[in-house]
Amino acid sequence: MKLNILGCYSATPRTFTNPTSQVLEINNHLFLIDCGEGTQVQLRRHKIKFNRIKHIFISHLHGDHFFGLVGLISTMRLLTRETELHIYAPKGLKEVITLQMKLANSWTNFDLIFHELTSEFSELIFEDKKVEVYTIPLNHRVYTNGFLFKEKPGERKLDMNAVLNANIDIAYYRKLKQGADVINNDGKIINNEAVTFAPDKPKSYAFCSDTAYKEDIVPIIKNVDVLYHESTFLEQHAHLAPKTKHSTAKEAGSIAKQANVGKLLLGHYSTRYDDLNLFKTEAQTLFKNVELADDGKVFEF
Amino acid sequence: MKLNILGCYSATPRTFTNPTSQVLEINNHLFLIDCGEGTQVQLRRHKIKFNRIKHIFISHLHGDHFFGLVGLISTMRLLTRETELHIYAPKGLKEVITLQMKLANSWTNFDLIFHELTSEFSELIFEDKKVEVYTIPLNHRVYTNGFLFKEKPGERKLDMNAVLNANIDIAYYRKLKQGADVINNDGKIINNEAVTFAPDKPKSYAFCSDTAYKEDIVPIIKNVDVLYHESTFLEQHAHLAPKTKHSTAKEAGSIAKQANVGKLLLGHYSTRYDDLNLFKTEAQTLFKNVELADDGKVFEF
Repeated sequence: MKLNILGCYSATPRTFTNPTSQVLEINNHLFLIDCGEGTQVQLRRHKIKFNRIKHIFISHLHGDHFFGLVGLISTMRLLTRETELHIYAPKGLKEVITLQMKLANSWTNFDLIFHELTSEFSELIFEDKKVEVYTIPLNHRVYTNGFLFKEKPGERKLDMNAVLNANIDIAYYRKLKQGADVINNDGKIINNEAVTFAPDKPKSYAFCSDTAYKEDIVPIIKNVDVLYHESTFLEQHAHLAPKTKHSTAKEAGSIAKQANVGKLLLGHYSTRYDDLNLFKTEAQTLFKNVELADDGKVFEF
Repeated sequence: MKLNILGCYSATPRTFTNPTSQVLEINNHLFLIDCGEGTQVQLRRHKIKFNRIKHIFISHLHGDHFFGLVGLISTMRLLTRETELHIYAPKGLKEVITLQMKLANSWTNFDLIFHELTSEFSELIFEDKKVEVYTIPLNHRVYTNGFLFKEKPGERKLDMNAVLNANIDIAYYRKLKQGADVINNDGKIINNEAVTFAPDKPKSYAFCSDTAYKEDIVPIIKNVDVLYHESTFLEQHAHLAPKTKHSTAKEAGSIAKQANVGKLLLGHYSTRYDDLNLFKTEAQTLFKNVELADDGKVFEF
C-alpha cells in the first residue's frame, strides 16, 4: 500500500498548502479520497494518471473536501476518458455535479456512477476479489463518513520444493493455496502447512476526517495498520474542538491507542499553526508511533 | 487602470498555468472578472486583499471560468467578511452556489447579491459616479457575455493661479469644474477654458472571452483603450475555431483593427501550444499594438 498526500490542511487552499485529498494505492487500485480545490493540479504534480482513478470517496460536503471534484470530472471529460467513474459521497453531491454539467451543456462521455451515502452505520460500499471498503460514520457538523480500506486475506503460497518432494498431483495445487490438506500420489495425507507458506498479512488503512472525538469508531478501525485521523487543533485550542466538531492531536492519539493501530498519521491541521511538530508531540503523550502527513509526502506500508 | 492577469489559459488548470481570471483596478474598484479553479490562490500570490473585491463578473458557465467562485466565497465566509458581494453572471449560477452552501450548511454572514444575466443585447449592469460596466454579448457554445468597463468623464481641473488672478468667488469653483463659464467679482464673464485644465481622458477596457469571431461587438467596443480578446487557436488550427466557437489570434487582430482599439491583449490560449509568440505574430498581421497576456503579468494603462 502506498498513500500519496495531495493535501492535508483544513479550511482553504493557500499558496503552499492544499485542502484534503489523498490517493491510496492498494492492489492495483488508485482510490482518490476527498477532492478539495486544486486536487487535479496536485495529481499532475504527483504524476498520477487521471485515468487510473476509477473510484472516488468523498467524506462530506464541506468545500475543502470536494470543491475540486467538478473540475477534475470536467478535465477527465476533456481528456476524452471512456472508463466509468464511481463516486461514493453523501447524498446531494450528484445534484451539485449534474447541475453544473447541465448549465455548461457538457456531459461526460464516460459513465459517472454516484453511490450516494445516507447510512448512520458502517456499511460495505465497495468490494472486489482483493479489497473491501467500509464507511466509518463520523461526528461532524454535517453528515460525514471516514473510510476503511481492507485487503482480503490472500492465498497461501506453494513451497515448490516441498510440494514436489511430497509427490502431490498438480490438480491439488489450487486446494493447497486455499489452505486444505491433500492426499498425495502415494495415498498419504499431506499437512498443508508442511508444503505452503502463509500469505502476506492483509493490510488495512482507515481515513477519519473530519470528526469530533468519537470512541464509537474504535471497534471499526481496531488493529488497522495505518490510521489517518484529523487533528485540527493543539491543546491550547482544545475548547474549540467540540464546538467545531473537530479533534485535537491528543484525541487522535487516544483513538489510535484504543484501536491498537500500527501507525497514526496526523493531518487536517488548522492553518493558524506554524510548527507541525507540536501535533506529533501532543499525540505521542498517548500513542508512540505517530507521523505527520504533509502535502507531497508519500507513505509506503 | 491596472489589470492583473491571474490566469489566461483555456480548459484546465495545470501545474504552471491557470484558467481565466483577472482583476481590473479602476477608480478604487477591484473588479474580479471570471474565476476559474485556483483563483483564490492566485489572488493570494498577487497579494490582492479579498475584502477589496466587491463585484465579480462571470462571462459564462463553463468550468474554466467559474469553478473557483464557490471556494472563494467560502473563504470570504471563513475570513468573517461582512461587506456585501455582487455577482454578475448568467442565470443558473445562483442555484449552483446556493445549493452548495445549503448542503454544507454554511451560509455567508455577508450579503451575496446575484445579478443574473439573460439579455442578448448589451446592457448597463453597474454604475456609480465614476464607472460604468456594460455587457458585450458574445457568441459561444453557451450563453456568454464579455464586459466593457468605462470611466465616466471626470471634472475639469482648476488652474488655481489663473482662477485667483481672474478674481472669481469661491462659490463658482464647482461650476468651473463642471465646465461652465462664470462671472467674476468685477462682473466680467470668464471663459471656462481660460482658468481650467481638461480632465484626464476617461479610460476604458473590454474583456471578450470566450467567443467565436463576432463583428457585432465592434460598435460596442469602438475606441476602447485596451481590448482583451480570446485567441484560443493559431492559424494552423483555424478550422477548429468555428466548431468550438472560439477565435484565432488573427481574428482577434481583425476585431481590434475594426474597433480601432488602443491596444490588443491576447489570451485564453489552447494548452496545445508551447510558443505564445506565434499568437502575437499572427495577430500583428492585421493590428500592430498587440501584447500577450500571461499568468502573473500586470498591465498598467
